[in-house]
Amino acid sequence: MSSETARIEAFSDGVFAIAVTLLILEIKIPASGSGRLGTMLLRQWPSYVAFVLSFAFIGIMWINHHRLFTHIRRADDGLLIFNLLLLMGVTAIPFPTAVLALHLRGADARLAAMVYNGTYVVIAVFFNILWRYALLHHLLGQEIDRAAMDRISKQYAGGPILYLLCVGLAWFSVTASLTVNFVLAMFFALPPALAERVTRRASAHG
Amino acid sequence: MSSETARIEAFSDGVFAIAVTLLILEIKIPASGSGRLGTMLLRQWPSYVAFVLSFAFIGIMWINHHRLFTHIRRADDGLLIFNLLLLMGVTAIPFPTAVLALHLRGADARLAAMVYNGTYVVIAVFFNILWRYALLHHLLGQEIDRAAMDRISKQYAGGPILYLLCVGLAWFSVTASLTVNFVLAMFFALPPALAERVTRRASAHG
Amino acid sequence: MSSETARIEAFSDGVFAIAVTLLILEIKIPASGSGRLGTMLLRQWPSYVAFVLSFAFIGIMWINHHRLFTHIRRADDGLLIFNLLLLMGVTAIPFPTAVLALHLRGADARLAAMVYNGTYVVIAVFFNILWRYALLHHLLGQEIDRAAMDRISKQYAGGPILYLLCVGLAWFSVTASLTVNFVLAMFFALPPALAERVTRRASAHG
Amino acid sequence: MSSETARIEAFSDGVFAIAVTLLILEIKIPASGSGRLGTMLLRQWPSYVAFVLSFAFIGIMWINHHRLFTHIRRADDGLLIFNLLLLMGVTAIPFPTAVLALHLRGADARLAAMVYNGTYVVIAVFFNILWRYALLHHLLGQEIDRAAMDRISKQYAGGPILYLLCVGLAWFSVTASLTVNFVLAMFFALPPALAERVTRRASAHG
Repeated sequence: MSSETARIEAFSDGVFAIAVTLLILEIKIPASGSGRLGTMLLRQWPSYVAFVLSFAFIGIMWINHHRLFTHIRRADDGLLIFNLLLLMGVTAIPFPTAVLALHLRGADARLAAMVYNGTYVVIAVFFNILWRYALLHHLLGQEIDRAAMDRISKQYAGGPILYLLCVGLAWFSVTASLTVNFVLAMFFALPPALAERVTRRASAHG
Repeated sequence: MSSETARIEAFSDGVFAIAVTLLILEIKIPASGSGRLGTMLLRQWPSYVAFVLSFAFIGIMWINHHRLFTHIRRADDGLLIFNLLLLMGVTAIPFPTAVLALHLRGADARLAAMVYNGTYVVIAVFFNILWRYALLHHLLGQEIDRAAMDRISKQYAGGPILYLLCVGLAWFSVTASLTVNFVLAMFFALPPALAERVTRRASAHG
Repeated sequence: MSSETARIEAFSDGVFAIAVTLLILEIKIPASGSGRLGTMLLRQWPSYVAFVLSFAFIGIMWINHHRLFTHIRRADDGLLIFNLLLLMGVTAIPFPTAVLALHLRGADARLAAMVYNGTYVVIAVFFNILWRYALLHHLLGQEIDRAAMDRISKQYAGGPILYLLCVGLAWFSVTASLTVNFVLAMFFALPPALAERVTRRASAHG
Repeated sequence: MSSETARIEAFSDGVFAIAVTLLILEIKIPASGSGRLGTMLLRQWPSYVAFVLSFAFIGIMWINHHRLFTHIRRADDGLLIFNLLLLMGVTAIPFPTAVLALHLRGADARLAAMVYNGTYVVIAVFFNILWRYALLHHLLGQEIDRAAMDRISKQYAGGPILYLLCVGLAWFSVTASLTVNFVLAMFFALPPALAERVTRRASAHG
């Protein structure tokens, strides 16, 4: 973290922290007076699934943003704009999360899961744009080597395609699609070096 | 950023970050059970337009606030008050945004767009007050030259008039008014030096 | 700001920034379809009055918190607890604000204004406790002199009594009560030295 | 606070500050026009109880998080993940708080209190995981001695069991359960050294 990028990081941290904390507001409070609170709480399970999924996603995006900005040392107006674009994606998440929570058990479950995963495709694209921009405009610190840069680029490049796969998968199985979505979050939580080894082993077995 | 203004910036960053993240809460979640989620999501397009417009506006205001405070080095009680006034404008934005989103397709579209643009007129005035106050009370750092100050003053001076034009334009065409509104946000995203060149070329062609 | 109190201030700034930004969520969005948006927006004037009053109050409390912590240099567990107590008062404000906004034109206007001012009495008491605690436990920096301390103590001591007066005044006139409330906010925005002079002149004339 | 853990703390502070400030949004605004505002405000007492309980709990969790991170000096990916897990618990609190507030007077009071205390069991477990992880992975600074570490470990180890007791107690008496819950919050507000003395005296008398 350099002083030049400090305020960008502070602002971004704020947006991540708020977006992740607003998620809980989308969970309905069961009405009182019926004496059936237990059943009503259990029937809301899609809301809890959606909450955990989105929390994991935003939390892990924050970790990744943090990682990028340990390398990014200089800021220009382009970086500010592309960072805002990424944050727009982040702040939007409570909406598809609520759509998923409300429709996961209904006739529109497939579409809801596609919209949900679709948001992640867009955000993954924005993450790639931000990183590529920083690379191309030489905004990184001296201490990062070529190999480390390539590892990040490779890990990120997979994002849009993998989440697009989740969108398609939702057509066949909503459960499978959301499971892969969660596994992907875990994959992006891995440090780039470890992620590379996992990818290599997976392709060797594939 | 000097230590004297650090806490003002931190507080302001918090307000900007929260205001921009609250925007999503104004988008309604389509009810479940109808099997028509797709249609309902599409019919909500005014909410998405309003979300993107307001996100761009608040984000770019944050960039501008950031730019001003790279020059402002000292704080006095007046600066605190005028900064609060500006922040009051910022926190208000989710309200006209929701009004615009709900009324953009109805009989009150013109009035909604006028209220929306009107909020921006007020905020643009507050931005000018803050900047002029800092100039007049010598709160800027030594390193900024006369020409750079004038460029900022000139770029900002146009704000209230241009947004007032948007208010008037809404009477004739809501679409035109919101388009100009978005173009203006892009204009204020430009660094002052670039903005000056754009203005000069525009007047040469005009 | 010392490093010891830095995290308290950062946390408090966050709470102030969020409380002030949440105020807008309490303003209702007029329903669409009626073609009477203008009338509906105007009829909501109590919401705007309540918004501006509470924004001013929270903003000025932030300035005062900021002022106290330029003097407070050490933190102990008591200070943490009393600061939390003050913040509990701050986060509560959106509730009496919404009560006031909804009932300002109805049969319960007096009670709503009394509840509203009553919240401020409690917060003013918490402010005094925090300041007295810091004084008694020698948590202030060396550079503040006896006279400056006394000025702050005197300015704050008036708070609970003056807001209690507002509570009583609401019984006779809601408008008068809210006007005095706003004037008080302005008085607490004054730096202690200036506040003392204003008080002295007021008592000379009284 | 080391520079390595600074951004974790800033992000966590943001989440704590937002979660604590969102609590007020769960309190309903009594409808206007009935002239019975007083009765309606009084009848809502469970909402105020739930607000104060949860505010105290989150505030004191923040103090504890603050205390841990005066000792934690290094961060690794595991710490990031376990800190996120803890924050997920924190952001969830407005939901059980609202459930408790709405059902405290109804037929489901017992279940609501059990869900409420149950959330605290989970969070207490997450706090223990975070602390044990930091211990095991040698992420602490040099200056903390063995005895101080043990005191924190002992104070925290009691948490899950004590809150589990609250869950059980709710079956017999909701009031007793919530009272013990509040006393526990006060206990965790104590610095570890003082907490140890209290525990010792309590067991001597027990």
